[in-house]
This record gives sequence, C-alpha cells and structure tokens, in this order.
Amino acid sequence: MSRIDYNLSDIRAIVFDIDGVLSPSTVPVDEEGRPSRMINVKDSFAIRLAISKGLKVAIISGATDPRMQEAYSRFGVTDIFMSRPDKKAVMLRWMADASLARHEVAYVGDDIPDIPAMTCAGLRVCPADAADDVKEASNYISRVPGGHGVARDLLEQILSAQDKWITEHNDYLW
Amino acid sequence: MSRIDYNLSDIRAIVFDIDGVLSPSTVPVDEEGRPSRMINVKDSFAIRLAISKGLKVAIISGATDPRMQEAYSRFGVTDIFMSRPDKKAVMLRWMADASLARHEVAYVGDDIPDIPAMTCAGLRVCPADAADDVKEASNYISRVPGGHGVARDLLEQILSAQDKWITEHNDYLW
Amino acid sequence: MSRIDYNLSDIRAIVFDIDGVLSPSTVPVDEEGRPSRMINVKDSFAIRLAISKGLKVAIISGATDPRMQEAYSRFGVTDIFMSRPDKKAVMLRWMADASLARHEVAYVGDDIPDIPAMTCAGLRVCPADAADDVKEASNYISRVPGGHGVARDLLEQILSAQDKWITEHNDYLW
Amino acid sequence: MSRIDYNLSDIRAIVFDIDGVLSPSTVPVDEEGRPSRMINVKDSFAIRLAISKGLKVAIISGATDPRMQEAYSRFGVTDIFMSRPDKKAVMLRWMADASLARHEVAYVGDDIPDIPAMTCAGLRVCPADAADDVKEASNYISRVPGGHGVARDLLEQILSAQDKWITEHNDYLW
Repeated sequence: MSRIDYNLSDIRAIVFDIDGVLSPSTVPVDEEGRPSRMINVKDSFAIRLAISKGLKVAIISGATDPRMQEAYSRFGVTDIFMSRPDKKAVMLRWMADASLARHEVAYVGDDIPDIPAMTCAGLRVCPADAADDVKEASNYISRVPGGHGVARDLLEQILSAQDKWITEHNDYLW
Repeated sequence: MSRIDYNLSDIRAIVFDIDGVLSPSTVPVDEEGRPSRMINVKDSFAIRLAISKGLKVAIISGATDPRMQEAYSRFGVTDIFMSRPDKKAVMLRWMADASLARHEVAYVGDDIPDIPAMTCAGLRVCPADAADDVKEASNYISRVPGGHGVARDLLEQILSAQDKWITEHNDYLW
Repeated sequence: MSRIDYNLSDIRAIVFDIDGVLSPSTVPVDEEGRPSRMINVKDSFAIRLAISKGLKVAIISGATDPRMQEAYSRFGVTDIFMSRPDKKAVMLRWMADASLARHEVAYVGDDIPDIPAMTCAGLRVCPADAADDVKEASNYISRVPGGHGVARDLLEQILSAQDKWITEHNDYLW
Repeated sequence: MSRIDYNLSDIRAIVFDIDGVLSPSTVPVDEEGRPSRMINVKDSFAIRLAISKGLKVAIISGATDPRMQEAYSRFGVTDIFMSRPDKKAVMLRWMADASLARHEVAYVGDDIPDIPAMTCAGLRVCPADAADDVKEASNYISRVPGGHGVARDLLEQILSAQDKWITEHNDYLW
C-alpha cells in the first residue's frame, strides 16, 4: 500500500459509504432486484479494532440494506445511517453532535453522491475504481478497488500513526 | 477511460444488452439453473442520471429475468424488452416510435446476437471482453469488462459532452 | 486469443469438465456446503451454436449438480454425466457409442482427475489456471481462467475452422 | 508457483484459517448479515488427497459457519475448530494431542489473529493478499490471493516433496 500524506494523528472519526467502498461496485441482485452487498473480512477486522481503540466509525448510505446493518452492528458500528441520500447533512449533524472538527474526520467515498459529504472531511479517501470526479476530490486514492480492503488500508495507516495498531499479538480482539 | 471518437452531442438514446454488458459474462446459477445476474452500482447511478437529464434508455435482452426488470425499473428505465432474441426488430420499432435517427442512438452489446441490432446504431460500444466479432463491429471498445462499468464509461462521456454531467454537487439525484 | 495448433476440421465432439472449466475454481457454497457453480454466457452461446451445427457436446463431472444439469440441458446438451469420477471409462464408452476416433475428440479439463480421460482425446485443452500436470498434458492452454470463457475460446476456433461460425448475422440462434 | 524454501519432507500436519485463506477476503453476506464463504475446488482436491496420503489437516476459525463445517467434513477433514478466537491455544493443544513438533507443522493464515498461532508452526504460509504483518511473519508468501488456491499451492509442494503427489493417473481419488 502507498502512504497517506496527512497528519493521521489528528483523525478521530472515519465515515464510510457502502456501495463501491465497503462493498464492491459489481454485486449480485436479490429476489427483489436489490443489490446483494458483500463484505471484506480484513476491512471488518480493522473496523472492530478501530472502534475498540476509541476511534469513531460511521456508515452513511443512500440505500437501505438490513444485512449490512446487521453485519456492521455486529462489528460494533453504532452510527449506521441508511436511506440517507442527503449524506452531507447527515455528516454535518453527526460531526456537530460529536464535536468533531473537519481535520479530525476521514471520509471514504467512490461516487458523485459522496462528494458533498466528502468536502466536510479533512481526509478524503477513495478506492482505485472510484469515479474520476471523486478521485479529483480525494487526497488519497487507495490501490485497492471498492470492497477489496480500502477500509483496511486506511484504518491500518491511521491506527499505526496513532500507535494503536497491533504490536503485541495477544492484544487483538476477534 | 479512453475517449470515444464520435459526435456525442448527437446522442439522444442508448440501448443496453444485459448479459455481458450490464451484468458480467460469468454469473452464479439459481435454483432453476438460470443465470443469476449482477449489477454495477456506478452504472446504475449513471443510468438514473441520464434518464433524469432527458436521455432515452432501453434494455433489450434475449433472456427473461424478473430481478433485472425490477432493478432497472427502479432506476427509471421504462423500455425493458425481455425474451426478445429478435433484437434488431425490437430496436428498429423502438427507434421509429421515438423518431430516433441512426446517428442519435448508441448500442452497447458484447456478443453475436447483438450485432444485427448494433448495426442500427450510429455509436456501437462494447466491453473489453466482448466477442471478437462485436469488437470489430464497434466504434468504441471500453477498457472495462462487461458488468464492471461499461454503461458508466459511456454515459459519463455522453453526459459530459452534452454539459449534463454533474458539476454542482448538490445537483445529483439518488 | 491465441491459436490452437491442431487440425480443427477433424473435431466432431467436445467434452467438458465442470469445476474449474465451465465454472470457476472458486465458487460460493450453498446451504448444504456444496459448491454453487457459475456459468459464462459466452460459453453458453457457443455451446448452443456448436450443437446446432452438428457437433457433439458432452459434460462429465465427478460431482452432481442439478442446477448445472438443468442449465446445460436448456442449452441443448443431452450427454451430461454426473457423479462419474471414472471419467475415462465414461468417455471411452461415449466415444465408442458415437463411433468417435481419438483425433476427432477434444477434452477440456483443469485438474488431476481429468488427466486419464484427457489422454483419450486428440485435442487436450485447459484453462489458464489449470493444475501444472494438466497443462503439461494439454496441447492448448487457453488464455482465460476456468469459468471465464475457455469453452468459447475453443468452440469459436473449431467452428471457424469448419466454416460454421456465424458470418451472416441473422443466422444465429438464441 | 514459486518454490517453498523449507524441508517439506518434515511436514506431517497443516492448519488452515478460513476467511482470507480457504475463502476469499471479499464474500457475499447472507440473510443474517453473516459472511457467505466460498471454496476453491483445486484446494479441495488437494486437501482430500493430502488426508488420503496420511497427512493431518486441521481448520481453525474465529467464526462459525455450518456450511464450511459441512463442506470440509465431506472432504475428510475431521479436526475443524470453529468459534475459536484463541487459535494459538487450540493449535498447541492439537499439536500436543497428535505429538507434533513445531517443524512438522505448517500454518496458513492471512490476518493479525493468525499470528500467535502461526508462531507455533515451523512453516508459516500466507496468500498474496495477506496483511503486511502476516507477510512478515511468514516464510512463504503464495502468489495466489486467499480463496484462490493457496492450500493447493502448499499441499502440492508438500506432497511432491514427499513423493505422495499423483504420478500414476489412475491413482487419484475423487
């Protein structure tokens, strides 16, 4: 992985989009014609670890998916916003409630609807297969495509910079 | 993405095949031994946007899939033709009904059954993994394989050429 | 695709393995812990076309999968042998029944259990991700991995060599 | 595949993690929001063969998955430990019960929770997309990513080194 050029010790909170970020852009369709999303187990490990180390994690999606709600709740994510196309408004409110300053927040998005919310974050990250406009709006483009470890790439760098990454290998949670 | 060499400001309508175009060539099989198709969320975003900006979008498939019907209806596609191996006839009728001239229409196909219909369109597009004969019949070969954003690649270029792509980022729909 | 170095006008019959050939090596697992196989729509098109042009097509698998049985029956394959780890015996019997000589038969396999059957075929083909021993036993290694068009690659070359590939594009079947 | 630099004739037992090793890192999510794991048929073949040749095979996972339990039981794996985040303790006990010395054991893992258990094995293997820390802890990094044949790569090398790989091609089991 390449290195993020940002003062990562400042980051206190990370916001993730689902489609094209935590889940790949191309996914199966369920019986009702709805996207059947996927997860990356290395992303999940890092999200659990980040929360256990005191970082705030939120998920904001324009769509609704009870499976994703269930999966990420199990990993300890409490702030999951679904059916919220007004991502920027959700994010500003969430940041205000948690007294988060812009430079303390990272946002990971992949497509046009993420851009307004993305502008509220000091650290703007996208996967390798993000839309061109999102790449231009980002200060870090991960080498991995959406759904294949972009959360892991980001969180491992943040946690390492904050000396919160696993060093004693009996220290992890599962 | 590479650039399409065509007068994109002329395009008023785009026709998509499903298998190998909107959905990948390799897919799971359901309980009845039928292909279980997939969608690309960035394609879906662009299709919704294109329709909202007044472009006509049609889907013509030789197969039938209620899930795809449901998925693309939800994205606003009204002209979905299933179980129509006679793609060329369907397309000519659709173009006549909508008073569309050849140079105003784009067709995206990936395999032999698409070729007759394809010849009715001024702009003929295929994914990177299209059949050789389809590549020869195309004036634009996308860099992405079927199911991985070929609709997005095409629509983003058409909408940009027509100044209909998103520039104000509060302007999108979800 | 690269070219097969074989007298393809001799080929009258083609035998396919399923796992790792028509379906990828890595697949989902169903409720009973069984592989949930996938199909490639370009393979399927070519198999239908080959049968309609008079070529014989058989599928021999060591496993059983009603979904694959259903899918390939629909494409017109009548000789589907499931739960037959004794692939070589099945193949020799099938060749004898159809009066097929060794040089008239192609076999596509990817792993060790295919090798004995493979030796009965004049043309031995494998996908790009076949086991090393199978690659050594093959006279053609396709550029595509299993499940991603190896049947298409082979059949398109055979049909072209026999002037049975689609040239008039109203001529195809669906 | 590249060559493992280890005295493979010593290996009597191999331990596999599931997520990111036998199954890919990115997987579908089921109705309850749980990972829906995948299998690689070439891995499965090699695992069956290894067991039939007298090698011991164990699977240790921090998660629970009845489908994987079912699938690998069918391949002959008897020592499947699920819901065991304490992988190192499980492994030490299993090694003691089987009187296995460190240099006789190989462990294949991909992420942080594998590292403590990994240190108990003489041969430490990981897939191409393993976490950086796991790569550092490994003495062999396979060229294939998790879920795409890393077990096969390892077992084929072990069995070959022990003259247990298939040479007579009527000799295999299915």
